[in-house]
Amino acid sequence: MSQIYNFSAGPAALPKEVLQQARDEMLDWHGSGMSVMEMSHRGKEFMSIIEDLENDLRNLAGIPSNYKVLFLQGGASSQFAMIPMNLLRDKKKADYINTGQWSEKAIKEAKKYCTVNIAASSEDAKFTYAPTQDQWRLNDDAAYIHYTSNETIGGVEFNWAPDFPMDSEVPLVADMSSNILSRSLDVSRYGLIYAGAQKNLGPAGLVLVIIREDLAGFPLPGTPTLFDYMVHIKNDSMYNTPPTYAIYITGLVLKWLKQQGGLTVVEQNNIHKAALLYDLLDTSDFYHCPVAKQDRSRMNIPFTLKDPALDEAFLKQAEANGLVQLKGHRSVGGMRASLYNAMPVEGVVQLITFMKEFSSKHA
Amino acid sequence: MSQIYNFSAGPAALPKEVLQQARDEMLDWHGSGMSVMEMSHRGKEFMSIIEDLENDLRNLAGIPSNYKVLFLQGGASSQFAMIPMNLLRDKKKADYINTGQWSEKAIKEAKKYCTVNIAASSEDAKFTYAPTQDQWRLNDDAAYIHYTSNETIGGVEFNWAPDFPMDSEVPLVADMSSNILSRSLDVSRYGLIYAGAQKNLGPAGLVLVIIREDLAGFPLPGTPTLFDYMVHIKNDSMYNTPPTYAIYITGLVLKWLKQQGGLTVVEQNNIHKAALLYDLLDTSDFYHCPVAKQDRSRMNIPFTLKDPALDEAFLKQAEANGLVQLKGHRSVGGMRASLYNAMPVEGVVQLITFMKEFSSKHA
Repeated sequence: MSQIYNFSAGPAALPKEVLQQARDEMLDWHGSGMSVMEMSHRGKEFMSIIEDLENDLRNLAGIPSNYKVLFLQGGASSQFAMIPMNLLRDKKKADYINTGQWSEKAIKEAKKYCTVNIAASSEDAKFTYAPTQDQWRLNDDAAYIHYTSNETIGGVEFNWAPDFPMDSEVPLVADMSSNILSRSLDVSRYGLIYAGAQKNLGPAGLVLVIIREDLAGFPLPGTPTLFDYMVHIKNDSMYNTPPTYAIYITGLVLKWLKQQGGLTVVEQNNIHKAALLYDLLDTSDFYHCPVAKQDRSRMNIPFTLKDPALDEAFLKQAEANGLVQLKGHRSVGGMRASLYNAMPVEGVVQLITFMKEFSSKHA
Repeated sequence: MSQIYNFSAGPAALPKEVLQQARDEMLDWHGSGMSVMEMSHRGKEFMSIIEDLENDLRNLAGIPSNYKVLFLQGGASSQFAMIPMNLLRDKKKADYINTGQWSEKAIKEAKKYCTVNIAASSEDAKFTYAPTQDQWRLNDDAAYIHYTSNETIGGVEFNWAPDFPMDSEVPLVADMSSNILSRSLDVSRYGLIYAGAQKNLGPAGLVLVIIREDLAGFPLPGTPTLFDYMVHIKNDSMYNTPPTYAIYITGLVLKWLKQQGGLTVVEQNNIHKAALLYDLLDTSDFYHCPVAKQDRSRMNIPFTLKDPALDEAFLKQAEANGLVQLKGHRSVGGMRASLYNAMPVEGVVQLITFMKEFSSKHA
């Protein structure tokens, strides 16, 4: 193969160094004679892997000691149900901020369990912006406030952290699936953070949950055992067999993030990469990004071509240039370039070079 | 590393050829320039992987066309809840056969949703046998009958398939986590079969469900969307991002099974391997297996040493001989040798050689 750059929105590109290490260790992890896939999850080898992962995550993200870190299955979609099933705690309402398709999925699922108050929505502008905190109409009797910190499909990101200190009466819950560890993070503002791994953390099949310990332990009647956060807290994510290989790869990704210099450095790189592409979009009348400037995602950049009839040619020629998985989500069309942590700046430069050539040919 | 043999009960040894192929394809699957972990689950590359897996499974196991095959997350433990949440269909009772710790976990979870009738139990003999079908006291108004075809911890296996034809009014449900694809299988006797992958199929993080199509579509109110079989049927296991890498590895394992000659050949190998070890256990007064002969598992063989004070020395010397993960489950002690499909006969021969030497030294 020649070098390709993979702009998939998830599952997404992983750092090459991580894949190389996984390859080299596939049949023999650290002289154990076993693949990580073959290890008992309760053996000393795998226990060291999951403990390392938790420690690295706590250090990278600065997770306070009264927060538990859980490595679960079922993706963010499982959390859409687990959150109301655990956090309602005798209340009947929850506040949700609606900024696009992932918010809507969370809202739809929550309605099975409680009354959902849409505290703010950008539906009026086709989900092209993020409502500011002073636009959020919150309920005092809401059990929690839920928002999606980055909309993978619409390309809208909260470029600010809502101001809810740890002692806030109504805890803030965030779906950070597509921007976790892409920027600095103040965990203490949140009651619960969750993120499917397959964008910025590792392979599909793992979902990370960071939960303030006091919030767990109050599941609704009929909650499946696996949907009870306290069960997983008490068992250190080992109530049942965890997705061991996905945990191992995520551990390698976190070590790679540390080598990059941690979240501050990674955030600077992400700002730089996104600016390169947005600059082209904004200075071109061939390409267009619909998202309000202040709320543009650094991770997922949707854009359209002046003439949709050129979409197919664009994708085909991009692929011939080693630039793959640029097609926009089937619900919105156009293009989408996902620039997660693992996307090197060279990939963005190549994309821009190609886009300039394409537009000059078809202007 | 020198050659080791891994007797873990799960996650367990995988065929060496599978791991070698996974290693070779880690950074570039079939010239795509991508790792399987990096592929969009909706792209043509991954779609071909999951379709191949389903086809191979249908061929190997002879799955009738009115059965759906689902690749889900959450392990067998998620199924303990999903089964009552979906199969009760307005009924209030379910029949369960209790043959050990995994049966008990399924029963405990089902009690959250219905009245459980213990139709048969081997608790009277410390779960060392499997009740015959004429001992099952079934209820006509039960929604389904659940049994565990192989108890991983106790080492008890149903060496016969219960006789419930496809048109039986009460469907038969089987947890086949630890013996699926280890022997020939008549799917048409079952309403639903499920199996965590991490024993005979692939890595942890994937659970296989084979469900007769007419049984899905009747979830209890409050069932999380991800716990509704019909949602997964309608979306071909792609309602949310599936555990793509675990699916890929399982696909490689199934191709390996086909190369071995399919289930008939694999079953003969498993009979042979188990017989080698049971013969030693039965002709020795140093080792002891507590399970009734006709119900002994081919997959998980628990045994004790005459003097438990020797356990630690046994494990230590076994490990020095490259025979690892032989420690019995923490709840029962002693030893356990798991001889899944991927365990080569040489591994069993080496184990037996070591056991003979150890017993002659300590007799």
